[in-house]
Amino acid sequence: MKKKFFKVITRAKALSLFDTISLKDKERIITKESLGRILGSTITAPCNVPNFDRSTMDGYAVIADDTYGSSESSPVTLIVKDEVVMGRKADMRIQKGEGVVIPTGGMIPQGADAVVMIENTKRKGELIAIKKAVAPLENIVEKGSDIKKGDLLLEEGRIIRAQDLGVLYSCGIEEIDVFKKPRVSIISTGDELVSPEMKPKPGEIRGINTYTLYALTERYGGEPVDLGIAKDSMNEIKELIEIGISKSDIIVISGGSSVGTKDITLDCITAFNGSDVLANGLALKPGKPTILAKIDNKPVIGLPGHPVSCMVIFYLILKPLILKMMSYKERFGDKTSIRAMVSQNIPSVSGREEYIRVRLKEENGAVWAEPVPGGSGVISSLSRADGLVRIDLESEGVEKGEMVDVLFM
Amino acid sequence: MKKKFFKVITRAKALSLFDTISLKDKERIITKESLGRILGSTITAPCNVPNFDRSTMDGYAVIADDTYGSSESSPVTLIVKDEVVMGRKADMRIQKGEGVVIPTGGMIPQGADAVVMIENTKRKGELIAIKKAVAPLENIVEKGSDIKKGDLLLEEGRIIRAQDLGVLYSCGIEEIDVFKKPRVSIISTGDELVSPEMKPKPGEIRGINTYTLYALTERYGGEPVDLGIAKDSMNEIKELIEIGISKSDIIVISGGSSVGTKDITLDCITAFNGSDVLANGLALKPGKPTILAKIDNKPVIGLPGHPVSCMVIFYLILKPLILKMMSYKERFGDKTSIRAMVSQNIPSVSGREEYIRVRLKEENGAVWAEPVPGGSGVISSLSRADGLVRIDLESEGVEKGEMVDVLFM
Repeated sequence: MKKKFFKVITRAKALSLFDTISLKDKERIITKESLGRILGSTITAPCNVPNFDRSTMDGYAVIADDTYGSSESSPVTLIVKDEVVMGRKADMRIQKGEGVVIPTGGMIPQGADAVVMIENTKRKGELIAIKKAVAPLENIVEKGSDIKKGDLLLEEGRIIRAQDLGVLYSCGIEEIDVFKKPRVSIISTGDELVSPEMKPKPGEIRGINTYTLYALTERYGGEPVDLGIAKDSMNEIKELIEIGISKSDIIVISGGSSVGTKDITLDCITAFNGSDVLANGLALKPGKPTILAKIDNKPVIGLPGHPVSCMVIFYLILKPLILKMMSYKERFGDKTSIRAMVSQNIPSVSGREEYIRVRLKEENGAVWAEPVPGGSGVISSLSRADGLVRIDLESEGVEKGEMVDVLFM
Repeated sequence: MKKKFFKVITRAKALSLFDTISLKDKERIITKESLGRILGSTITAPCNVPNFDRSTMDGYAVIADDTYGSSESSPVTLIVKDEVVMGRKADMRIQKGEGVVIPTGGMIPQGADAVVMIENTKRKGELIAIKKAVAPLENIVEKGSDIKKGDLLLEEGRIIRAQDLGVLYSCGIEEIDVFKKPRVSIISTGDELVSPEMKPKPGEIRGINTYTLYALTERYGGEPVDLGIAKDSMNEIKELIEIGISKSDIIVISGGSSVGTKDITLDCITAFNGSDVLANGLALKPGKPTILAKIDNKPVIGLPGHPVSCMVIFYLILKPLILKMMSYKERFGDKTSIRAMVSQNIPSVSGREEYIRVRLKEENGAVWAEPVPGGSGVISSLSRADGLVRIDLESEGVEKGEMVDVLFM
């Protein structure tokens, strides 16, 4: 039984329809190569950092109690016993009345519990005058004070940043689990389309959506697979969908999803056994003619052919879907939006979300969002825009001076 | 003549010292592979987009004048002459009183100047009743209306985004000039350091700065070269600096730049003919013990060994330097900072800039920046932090509730 319907749903509803799509498997990779990947398991520290007590100063490791009462005018004298060598084990054991030469970062010898800065000492042969008392642990970084064995280091679902590599290697974690990248097959359809590398003849245009979707998929953590351009033929499109299903986790078909004479994407999807059309149309603009379906429980998304609509739907539907399959949890620092003031009234129609392309500029200490002219067919507006302003489903627009969130694009 | 001095300079001054460093060369690459690269020349459109007049509707291409006065009750009747096929040249020429079937996206035939939507027509054999008048250019996208031949498309120095690829390919631009990536050689120094892949013996620690610097360099558009770890030996360090100079555009030496017994980076730099020490110390915290120098007019930067200071200086000095060598011009959408409210008083010392690691959280509709505890030796603080708050050179701190810029890290 195939459903064929034209029910328009909201973006929020659309995203919830894919809640049952399962997480990607994990793979084990070298930590060094994990920048930007999404962590597949929560990691706790397998050891202490540092894993020995270290000096934070050049000076003398001592027993703090020995320095009690010492001052510039009445220094305490200790015997210099030995020297800690940087990067080597401090083998000696300090006794009462003794001091050991130690460099910054050197290992504190057994028995010592403080370091006197070299500036507060005066050396005479084997004797050292301590001109300032130190408290226990003064000028020492204790074992485990940075990271304690068992500490939570990084949580599953986090994007791995440069500093996270440092933290992982400081504990000697050389391999980690990350979520595999969802593979996204990209199909463009349309009799009028030619590959962007070809010179179009009159009546033909270059099909650029494949390249845009390819780049966006890579940028947001997926692995794009370019399946090329299909003519508006059921057989050609079905064949590519079939390849997509066998090769990837998500299938994207750009073009052919509006209700018109040649709009056969929906027919192609419903022709598959195990297909399930979840929605045909979204209550938003641009991007209304979007199809959401599943074949063999894999998301199949029919995107509008207009480049602007196509890109907006990528940001609103595909990006969250790709990230969700990797169990991604947003950190604040990953935020890709900014608050700005609208530079002019923007009317909208209640009952659908609207996304306005805007250019951002700073003036008089405020950030302004200025609408970029052009309909959803205007490709060049995408390069002129810095981001998207959302106008709520129930809103009839925003007024000049109103504060809005701008999603970077 | 070697200068050896301990003059502390401000960050602004430090950045200006590299003003004479020359731009990187350009290279020509396939447009598809240019995502995230920096454009090496300003690009204007070599053609019109679209390059023919197109219909935005399924319907009939007509002469607008013919439909004048037509309405539901008194339709005008035209003769259906021919059909425009999608993706093909519209070879026919329309005459007064004629209409041509046209699909959305189809090429407007010669002589026609408007399209009547199919919904506003009624077909009877070779005749078509027009039930609504159209104005000239109605339902037509004119040749060049998206992009006009000669229009400015993208400016030199811009980061290339996904949509920019689309815009470039829409004009058939398959190759572009981008700035070559500055090569950054990374040297770590310290007798106590072992490679992060090795298990440190007592007294040794893992040298993680190389990996962090490597990842950061890649992320901000440079090409990192890992030259490994040198012991605190003039010969070893000088040898690696020499390799760095022969192989790369910037040389970074982590560790060994504070004033101490084993701090020999400065001596190694001044040992080179053609070396010029620009600064020894920056008026900021963390990161004061930073050396800025040039050898053969290539920047040589001595970074503090403490992981936090090392990373902060990367963001403040190295990132701008790498981007400057590619003539990078920031777009607003590239902005990597956010306004936030400070969650507690943060005291500071006037006379140096201070950078505070903070965690960001959203509460009661406001974004709060909460200081992360830990000195510049605390590696784990880097993973806990979302960004850096700057406290001005002349400021004695910020107060709870004050608004600040947080630079993402």
